[in-house]
Amino acid sequence: MSKFSFSRLNSTKDTGFGDNFSGRFINKDGYPNIKKKGINILNRYSWYHTMLNLKRWQFIGLLIGSYIVVNFIFALIYYSIGIEHLTGIDKSNFQNEFTDVFFFSSQTFTTVGYGRIAPVGFLASLVATFEAFLGLLAFAIATGLFYGRFSRPRAFLQFSDVALISPHKDKTGLMFRMAPFKNTSLTDASITVLTSFEVTENGQTKSSFYNLKLEVTKITSLILNWTIVHYIDEESPFYGLNADDLKNTDIEIIVHVKAFDSIFSSDVVQRTSYTSDEIIYGAKFEKMYAPDETNRFTVLNLDLINSNFPAPLPNIS
Amino acid sequence: MSKFSFSRLNSTKDTGFGDNFSGRFINKDGYPNIKKKGINILNRYSWYHTMLNLKRWQFIGLLIGSYIVVNFIFALIYYSIGIEHLTGIDKSNFQNEFTDVFFFSSQTFTTVGYGRIAPVGFLASLVATFEAFLGLLAFAIATGLFYGRFSRPRAFLQFSDVALISPHKDKTGLMFRMAPFKNTSLTDASITVLTSFEVTENGQTKSSFYNLKLEVTKITSLILNWTIVHYIDEESPFYGLNADDLKNTDIEIIVHVKAFDSIFSSDVVQRTSYTSDEIIYGAKFEKMYAPDETNRFTVLNLDLINSNFPAPLPNIS
Amino acid sequence: MSKFSFSRLNSTKDTGFGDNFSGRFINKDGYPNIKKKGINILNRYSWYHTMLNLKRWQFIGLLIGSYIVVNFIFALIYYSIGIEHLTGIDKSNFQNEFTDVFFFSSQTFTTVGYGRIAPVGFLASLVATFEAFLGLLAFAIATGLFYGRFSRPRAFLQFSDVALISPHKDKTGLMFRMAPFKNTSLTDASITVLTSFEVTENGQTKSSFYNLKLEVTKITSLILNWTIVHYIDEESPFYGLNADDLKNTDIEIIVHVKAFDSIFSSDVVQRTSYTSDEIIYGAKFEKMYAPDETNRFTVLNLDLINSNFPAPLPNIS
Amino acid sequence: MSKFSFSRLNSTKDTGFGDNFSGRFINKDGYPNIKKKGINILNRYSWYHTMLNLKRWQFIGLLIGSYIVVNFIFALIYYSIGIEHLTGIDKSNFQNEFTDVFFFSSQTFTTVGYGRIAPVGFLASLVATFEAFLGLLAFAIATGLFYGRFSRPRAFLQFSDVALISPHKDKTGLMFRMAPFKNTSLTDASITVLTSFEVTENGQTKSSFYNLKLEVTKITSLILNWTIVHYIDEESPFYGLNADDLKNTDIEIIVHVKAFDSIFSSDVVQRTSYTSDEIIYGAKFEKMYAPDETNRFTVLNLDLINSNFPAPLPNIS
Repeated sequence: MSKFSFSRLNSTKDTGFGDNFSGRFINKDGYPNIKKKGINILNRYSWYHTMLNLKRWQFIGLLIGSYIVVNFIFALIYYSIGIEHLTGIDKSNFQNEFTDVFFFSSQTFTTVGYGRIAPVGFLASLVATFEAFLGLLAFAIATGLFYGRFSRPRAFLQFSDVALISPHKDKTGLMFRMAPFKNTSLTDASITVLTSFEVTENGQTKSSFYNLKLEVTKITSLILNWTIVHYIDEESPFYGLNADDLKNTDIEIIVHVKAFDSIFSSDVVQRTSYTSDEIIYGAKFEKMYAPDETNRFTVLNLDLINSNFPAPLPNIS
Repeated sequence: MSKFSFSRLNSTKDTGFGDNFSGRFINKDGYPNIKKKGINILNRYSWYHTMLNLKRWQFIGLLIGSYIVVNFIFALIYYSIGIEHLTGIDKSNFQNEFTDVFFFSSQTFTTVGYGRIAPVGFLASLVATFEAFLGLLAFAIATGLFYGRFSRPRAFLQFSDVALISPHKDKTGLMFRMAPFKNTSLTDASITVLTSFEVTENGQTKSSFYNLKLEVTKITSLILNWTIVHYIDEESPFYGLNADDLKNTDIEIIVHVKAFDSIFSSDVVQRTSYTSDEIIYGAKFEKMYAPDETNRFTVLNLDLINSNFPAPLPNIS
Repeated sequence: MSKFSFSRLNSTKDTGFGDNFSGRFINKDGYPNIKKKGINILNRYSWYHTMLNLKRWQFIGLLIGSYIVVNFIFALIYYSIGIEHLTGIDKSNFQNEFTDVFFFSSQTFTTVGYGRIAPVGFLASLVATFEAFLGLLAFAIATGLFYGRFSRPRAFLQFSDVALISPHKDKTGLMFRMAPFKNTSLTDASITVLTSFEVTENGQTKSSFYNLKLEVTKITSLILNWTIVHYIDEESPFYGLNADDLKNTDIEIIVHVKAFDSIFSSDVVQRTSYTSDEIIYGAKFEKMYAPDETNRFTVLNLDLINSNFPAPLPNIS
Repeated sequence: MSKFSFSRLNSTKDTGFGDNFSGRFINKDGYPNIKKKGINILNRYSWYHTMLNLKRWQFIGLLIGSYIVVNFIFALIYYSIGIEHLTGIDKSNFQNEFTDVFFFSSQTFTTVGYGRIAPVGFLASLVATFEAFLGLLAFAIATGLFYGRFSRPRAFLQFSDVALISPHKDKTGLMFRMAPFKNTSLTDASITVLTSFEVTENGQTKSSFYNLKLEVTKITSLILNWTIVHYIDEESPFYGLNADDLKNTDIEIIVHVKAFDSIFSSDVVQRTSYTSDEIIYGAKFEKMYAPDETNRFTVLNLDLINSNFPAPLPNIS
């Protein structure tokens, strides 16, 4: 859909994105916009990756739900074996019976084992033995999952929702910014920015990819906000595009940040992307940090990450 | 067995494979085709590596089996100490006695400890104390093994079963492909491909190794399939080989892929290999991905990983 | 406040520190001297990073405190449900009742479950079931936190409290030193040193950053002390500064060390900084290591890390 | 003590070893030959590194020993509180009393809690509550230590006990070799070799360090044995040394190997060293691997790692 020729630029071939990809390449949250089919669905998912990506309430909910279901199933098994094989059951009515059987099951699964209710005879004992074993393995797995979830190295970077095209040091720059929003300690941060343009040549629509040249690609400490600047000069694929062109061209800016978290002692990676409608033409970011009153600290205000004000650019016809 | 002279090419010496290796170098699953002997067999195995490489059902089976065996051994110990040192045993017959002793053992090992049966006196108490301790350590180890198994960084790449020799962009290319088949997130993937040719010189059979020059050796995102292309030109060891030569020469293509998994925040590595009989002469891969109906996603069909169709090549005499 | 012009030097732009930062950039303990505000405070902290950074007594105190609070809350719940739903309670007076209820709660939370006191009926059993489950998850999390805390790769480097400006090999050098103070095994250590100078130009106070050129920036084994030497020659930002200038200029030396710990098999990073008042003009470090009496070992005396003696420098007017 | 002048060679300064080190630099097991003193001894040890370096039997012994000691201490506490605060104690004589108290303690610490003996009253309950809590934390720590111990990435390389000076491809080479002796999967192995010579100049004995130039410094797969070859030519510090010189000179060859373990997905490092008396002049290694009978596998015989036979070298006067 673009009126522009990029023949002056070398596109890059090593993106790993196909040239007839549909829709966004990378979603706002950094995950690729792709679906898979074929092979068995169970083989298509790494359950561990899935568990790590669940939201906290989903994970907790899953644990509690599984606990209830497993207890219920074992309660049914004990009940069908016969409550006479459990000592101490209150047999006054069915409801009391099942309550006691159900909670006997949970007391076994958690290995709390008060003993007010206890199994007698081979079958009930066998099931209880297996349930206690299963309970311990389940909590072993839960231990691993908890650790996996909270020790998972993540960058905890907040990106600005929009990218701006701003006047900057007598030039025009494409900018966006990020800030570490948690009490992490990131060093040796580096960034690569890839842009895709959907161009129509000979009636065929294809995506071309260009690596954007940046003012600074590495910083030694990522502790304040980091504003990424790409100068729009003749070597830029954005050269000559005005506000309307931007809206009418199918553009995606794909951002890939890598840093070393010195608490995790591990590299962390975060990705995001900006599409045409997330680029503001003619605006500048407000400063996000300032000395505090005592002049002994610097304060980074994370609420300002998106704050920008209009800043007119020279007209491009 | 080859009629070819590779004197025009520089073989590589730094493969780590010996030059009179027998059989395949790398198995299809990526593990080297080697056996070790000498030193004590217990020192020759890392039990942790072994536990990580067990199949899931083998691992679960091993846990359950050990649980039964340990309980049985402790039951024998309690029985030989004398059942009079356990309270609450049903002494009506031997079978009931042993049932109670066995399940007392399991209730101790899992620390469920209902207390219907409990040890009395020094010896039985001592064994029970030791069993409970052992049980906790066993589940501590199981916890570690579960975590080690499911947090183990793996690439989860599916390789095509075959490599193809195909016409490609007016040239001839050796190709194979791979696709990430799980919900992983791989970035910065790189590949090296080594080929071994068994050549007979002066009546002696030796393997020579050549690094294959590839069209693209690094991609920034490995989210779709990745087709690896080696052009068969004058600098290629495959130059001049026809279909029959391929079948009659002892060739192995050794593939080594490395990528960064941004969920594990770790490098992952996967290897595979193709031997002469896994190379198809004159065929092309079908496309594996396509836009979905809504045109908002791209769908990767993993079932097509091996799909190829005949594509004739110019004759080589 | 400096009388010096640094126009002969290239300052570095890729530090990640803003140019109107207030106070120290990096604190003595290596953490950046920054505060954050904005967004929800809960989102601003990674609770895992926080747990890893707690001092040992704080962490233990938090565990014990949580244990008491949780037991107390559950005791209140059981009490409000009614003590008639717990068997074996000593009902002689309120204090005994609450003692039994409180310890029943703790016996449930730890899954010790003696059974002298046990829940009867639906509601008490339900709460007990939930408490045992919560207890197991809490200890699962504690397990992960313990492991996370003690397996966290750290460099365990002790830096000298001061940096010295010393005569060294006929030149003048800025020096500080570090030593690994624990039984770690560090290899492939590298260092980068950045210096900030607060300079006033045209009435505006700004920080400029300069990378310091070092005599040695990498060593293969970090087992003894490592003395870092920056020669103060014409290319040094310290060139021409005398003792008074040092005191009156706002300088910060920011140190960043990276090494490979071969026991953790992980890179470890440590940072520190020296401000103007932590630089001694005209002093030399004493040697920290010596052969032991048997001449078969080398002994590193960590108490000498700061030992230095006066060493006059040529006068700079 | 050497008659040789090394003035033709550039020694290396970035070893991290001091120049008046006493005795061996690196012990045979790869740990530096150094002792530390000063600062508090508790601060001088990382207890986690210590736990990871304990031999298996030491670690198990420590666990069992701690378990007994802790139980004994708590038994004393319960006994001093008074056995009337524990139900179910056999009060027939002191020995039975203490037995019951001791095992009550262990049943609490392991949370097995049969309940035959249970605490009554505030003080005994409080101690039991604390012991169960401590028990769970202890096993949480044990879980972490077990995992830390067996998941610790190690190279599992066996080095030859000796280095040889051998005739090799018409030249003279210094050689030693290594082999991975467990079922690991090492790729991308690299090696650096440093040599120290103790030379006496102007009556002062000092160590000089030289990096040895190697035939191959990187291999892609470390699955067979790897023989490291340094050619002794004019650029070698060994040039011109004969068998007697070797014995009479204080030489140490310091070896540092790094590889990627694709099961741990982690870099692993191993070091060793050879001193003058571990170098054999005029010998060659026997081959360690051979095809098996079926000709489908290669068999690596680890028992041959040190096998060598005499191989005379041209005389050096």
